[in-house]
Amino acid sequence: MSVSLVILAAGMGSRMNSARPKVLHPIGGAPLLAHAMRAGDILEPERVVVVTGHGAEAVAKAAKTANPEVLIAHQAEQLGTAHAVAQARAALEGFTGDVVILYGDTPFVSPETLERMREARERHAVVVLGFEAADPGRYGRLILNGEMLERIVEFKDATEAERAITLCNSGVVCADASVLFQLIDSVGNENAAGEYYLTDIVAIARQKGLSVGAVRCDEAETLGINTRAELAAAEVAFQTRARAEALENGVTLIAPETIYFSLDTVIGRDAVVGPNVVFAPGVTVESDATIRAFCHLEGCHVSRGATVGPFARLRPDAYLAEDVHVGNFVEIKNANIDEGAKVNHLTYIGDADVGEGSNIGAGTITCNYDGVFKHRTTIGKNVFVGSDTMLVAPVRLGDGSMTGSGSVITEDVPAGALALGRARQENKPGLATRLMERLKAKKAAAKKEG
Amino acid sequence: MSVSLVILAAGMGSRMNSARPKVLHPIGGAPLLAHAMRAGDILEPERVVVVTGHGAEAVAKAAKTANPEVLIAHQAEQLGTAHAVAQARAALEGFTGDVVILYGDTPFVSPETLERMREARERHAVVVLGFEAADPGRYGRLILNGEMLERIVEFKDATEAERAITLCNSGVVCADASVLFQLIDSVGNENAAGEYYLTDIVAIARQKGLSVGAVRCDEAETLGINTRAELAAAEVAFQTRARAEALENGVTLIAPETIYFSLDTVIGRDAVVGPNVVFAPGVTVESDATIRAFCHLEGCHVSRGATVGPFARLRPDAYLAEDVHVGNFVEIKNANIDEGAKVNHLTYIGDADVGEGSNIGAGTITCNYDGVFKHRTTIGKNVFVGSDTMLVAPVRLGDGSMTGSGSVITEDVPAGALALGRARQENKPGLATRLMERLKAKKAAAKKEG
Amino acid sequence: MSVSLVILAAGMGSRMNSARPKVLHPIGGAPLLAHAMRAGDILEPERVVVVTGHGAEAVAKAAKTANPEVLIAHQAEQLGTAHAVAQARAALEGFTGDVVILYGDTPFVSPETLERMREARERHAVVVLGFEAADPGRYGRLILNGEMLERIVEFKDATEAERAITLCNSGVVCADASVLFQLIDSVGNENAAGEYYLTDIVAIARQKGLSVGAVRCDEAETLGINTRAELAAAEVAFQTRARAEALENGVTLIAPETIYFSLDTVIGRDAVVGPNVVFAPGVTVESDATIRAFCHLEGCHVSRGATVGPFARLRPDAYLAEDVHVGNFVEIKNANIDEGAKVNHLTYIGDADVGEGSNIGAGTITCNYDGVFKHRTTIGKNVFVGSDTMLVAPVRLGDGSMTGSGSVITEDVPAGALALGRARQENKPGLATRLMERLKAKKAAAKKEG
Repeated sequence: MSVSLVILAAGMGSRMNSARPKVLHPIGGAPLLAHAMRAGDILEPERVVVVTGHGAEAVAKAAKTANPEVLIAHQAEQLGTAHAVAQARAALEGFTGDVVILYGDTPFVSPETLERMREARERHAVVVLGFEAADPGRYGRLILNGEMLERIVEFKDATEAERAITLCNSGVVCADASVLFQLIDSVGNENAAGEYYLTDIVAIARQKGLSVGAVRCDEAETLGINTRAELAAAEVAFQTRARAEALENGVTLIAPETIYFSLDTVIGRDAVVGPNVVFAPGVTVESDATIRAFCHLEGCHVSRGATVGPFARLRPDAYLAEDVHVGNFVEIKNANIDEGAKVNHLTYIGDADVGEGSNIGAGTITCNYDGVFKHRTTIGKNVFVGSDTMLVAPVRLGDGSMTGSGSVITEDVPAGALALGRARQENKPGLATRLMERLKAKKAAAKKEG
Repeated sequence: MSVSLVILAAGMGSRMNSARPKVLHPIGGAPLLAHAMRAGDILEPERVVVVTGHGAEAVAKAAKTANPEVLIAHQAEQLGTAHAVAQARAALEGFTGDVVILYGDTPFVSPETLERMREARERHAVVVLGFEAADPGRYGRLILNGEMLERIVEFKDATEAERAITLCNSGVVCADASVLFQLIDSVGNENAAGEYYLTDIVAIARQKGLSVGAVRCDEAETLGINTRAELAAAEVAFQTRARAEALENGVTLIAPETIYFSLDTVIGRDAVVGPNVVFAPGVTVESDATIRAFCHLEGCHVSRGATVGPFARLRPDAYLAEDVHVGNFVEIKNANIDEGAKVNHLTYIGDADVGEGSNIGAGTITCNYDGVFKHRTTIGKNVFVGSDTMLVAPVRLGDGSMTGSGSVITEDVPAGALALGRARQENKPGLATRLMERLKAKKAAAKKEG
Repeated sequence: MSVSLVILAAGMGSRMNSARPKVLHPIGGAPLLAHAMRAGDILEPERVVVVTGHGAEAVAKAAKTANPEVLIAHQAEQLGTAHAVAQARAALEGFTGDVVILYGDTPFVSPETLERMREARERHAVVVLGFEAADPGRYGRLILNGEMLERIVEFKDATEAERAITLCNSGVVCADASVLFQLIDSVGNENAAGEYYLTDIVAIARQKGLSVGAVRCDEAETLGINTRAELAAAEVAFQTRARAEALENGVTLIAPETIYFSLDTVIGRDAVVGPNVVFAPGVTVESDATIRAFCHLEGCHVSRGATVGPFARLRPDAYLAEDVHVGNFVEIKNANIDEGAKVNHLTYIGDADVGEGSNIGAGTITCNYDGVFKHRTTIGKNVFVGSDTMLVAPVRLGDGSMTGSGSVITEDVPAGALALGRARQENKPGLATRLMERLKAKKAAAKKEG
């Protein structure tokens, strides 16, 4: 049977103390919302509906970045979770199958848990996800009768005996679409907060004689983010898992506790990653590549055998072919560096192609910006770019060409040619001595006066 | 009633294994002594007296840095804590009110605790700060009789029953100034160490019929630093608290555990701080500014909407106005960067003013030092500084001017002018090929011979 | 009595999920094998035999790097630990004395433990190292009879009573050489795996009436590395110990948990190390030197009073004399920087000598590579190298000379001379304004069209 997701993402998250909507705060370089959406991917959903509220525009944009086919439903007023789900009705018009309700601030529900909920749906009209709480505190409790979930009781309404129950409500629900919306129609708001609670559908379903089941998961999966401290703890949880996975996949992490991954980072077996490396979104590192200490990578590709850093920054659309060397204090952006090329020191390569076997001298800069437009630099194979060469784009250096150090290259250099653009050195005997004496005398005089 | 502080800072701290006086070892970028002094600020002290001993000159200097109006008392010989307090008598000449005795190696006494001590002073002539020790070990014990503190017994002199007491002595004392010095005059040194112990004033006060009270605080507040391992643990405690406070204040810390604060760091709400950022003393970052990974900031100001890093260093008196961009491998020192200006790559800006909207090309350097003097560079509004421009200060670039990349600018550039200072490019056909062949032949010959 | 070591290093370590032999994975910058070899150094071994198997060539090379006099024995087929030790027989031909058997994947056996094993050998023909396991799990158990070790029983062969024993087998053995090989000759392979187990020598020795003893050590010492997660945990253990040792030795580590040491790092008292510093192998830092945050050091020497960083990289054979300053975004390789010299910003110094008191301007580069050969740059005393000077090696700058900023220096500069190599600045009035207008018009036109 087909599935659709409804992801509730309307909350403001006032405890975050932030102008940014809660579900847009990031873990592993991706907004909480993207984690929740990704968790649901395992179900291969036919439709994904995100219910927006606070910061609706920004939330919708982030949802579309994560999944361009997402449907947006807007909850103009925050009148409770059942009301939020009700907003998704139009977006699910004509859909038949199961609806799974997830939360934009609950990033860690595992694919395996969602699959178990689907299985349980074969035996029940509605399935609720619960967790055994180490400290149940003020969570809602799941009241079971054998296999049957009878109702969800809020802590404040619970009897002493009910409060002793440790199986708590995660809020995640799976139900047949038509059943779900019928149940929601029956939910009232006669409670202290005047809100429509999704949890009420359980008791309503039972009153209608429907079967309701509960699936258990690990408490860590249902961790909801309400404060920045919880966000930080969730980031630690994410990184801990990402590091363990990388180690299991055969990546050498010298000091895993100092390496920061994004949700989409891909690293090959026997790649070596030194201490203090940040993988921002969009990075692929192939097997046997080396990322040394103190590197920052984003939106880039590092091929087999390449070496990067220490102190290197690879920006979006940097593509390093096999055996490329990128050294310290080097920035690469929107550039292809071909096989075996070297960019070892103090260099900025942006909007460029560097041919295989070329050597880019220290202090080289692609002058890609004229104040208004960006232009491209094209460097052929086996080119030797002398130190401190300015490559004023658009410009081409032919295969096997050279530039003299300190040259400003404004015109194309033919293959095999040497390009020079510098003044001849002139030595002025004794002048350094005289200049320094004069400065020191001035200083002495200033001291005397002052 | 007015208050004065006496801060004992005479100890050598031999267990630190350091030539530096113990109280000058830093936490959060500030010496332990400064933390102790700052803790007492809440009492708005009329006078602050620091008692120096080992490394007196350096300690006095640090004390004056933290509070220019501090009074210094010198304890030539270390004859015990009562003797140390006695040295403050002259500095407190004419002062009437309460004296609070703090310790230069005990940085974490909370303002709230000190206020509670002041309150307790309304009911007692002398108030001592105690803590319930998880492991009382060899601490002195507070012997209470109801509300009354009868005496402080040293561990080695304690009976079995007294050793079972877990309320221990922190050493922090609050007493009326004249009472305090009278009590101290009665302290003797008939003990194994031949020292004058401040703790003895409790029993003496009771003998004189004075009321003595005890105030309890958390054990963590009374943590004294004796070894480098304890210093490191205190740094962890400081950073943990600073990170939690920043999160509560609405700062986005991507990986709080990698961010290091100073005692005086100020960061606005919804500012974003990436992993691995060090805030040395004197930094203010406004709301909505972004500090990317791997940045080092000291004595600088980053305004709203500005973006810094990764791999940027802001040094003292760097002032970044709103929406400024400072990129990778950039150093800014003693410079004002006006609204919206960009300094994106591999640049040193020192002793300079950069006007709003200006763009500083990669590899630009302000040549501010002539070997003896430092000079200033002034860049107007909307200036386009080409890559690898050397700005030989003192020099001015007028509004809307430009420099060609690779230029050495030694003279002022008028508004709207283009300044160029470079040799014309010359291509020498085939020369690169011939040079490389010659070098390779030489290498082959060397191999043959060698 | 003299000692020889046999270090078993033939295993593949398939659980590492790596093409690299297990014993070559690093901790503290040195392969596991080097740690095991170093642990045995305390015994001043006459011979050290490493038994290779998987990746034999690479393992032998690493062994020789750690100790050039090591002897290599090859185990072509992995037929068990007794078989592995048997391969060392030829290498130990003619040796009389004790043999200590260690493991290339067990890096933390302490010198003190090995000394206790030697002492126990005075009372026993064979000594086995055991540890009290917190969770004995499937370890082999040591079956004692009073002081006498009767046998080692594998978990799967153990009775219920034997499984209750918590003294487990580390595999480390000390025995007289001739006795050892006789015992090994008696070991059979009649077991499920068809392997020759070294553990069997205990029961065989007892059958022959020989005395066998057990020495106990801390479980942490016998930690064997089988997975990358265990390797990461071992790295943490190593770093924790290295940091604690540095603190005890009087080094100031601002944030010890962010500082990474190598096995051979040496740092003097009252040296200061900021957060996020990586010490790769071969580094010595003298007393009172300062290594600021975000530095990467390898194979280099930093003398008393010198200051490095932040964001500096010292590569092999960088030698910094007293009071040298190396600043941000600076790379030093194979270079001597003499007393008091300064290299403060954005500079690459490679294959060079910098004389005392010299000042290297920002953006300076030693152009040491011509595409085939490396050449040396020699800078005298009190030289002032202007910003953005290219030093095209081989080249010499005499004492007290200067270079103008932006100069390309291809010829030697005499002492006291000023070398200049740059074009004269030319200001083109109004040209910047016209250029920018043209570009903006072009952009506007493009927008209109596009």
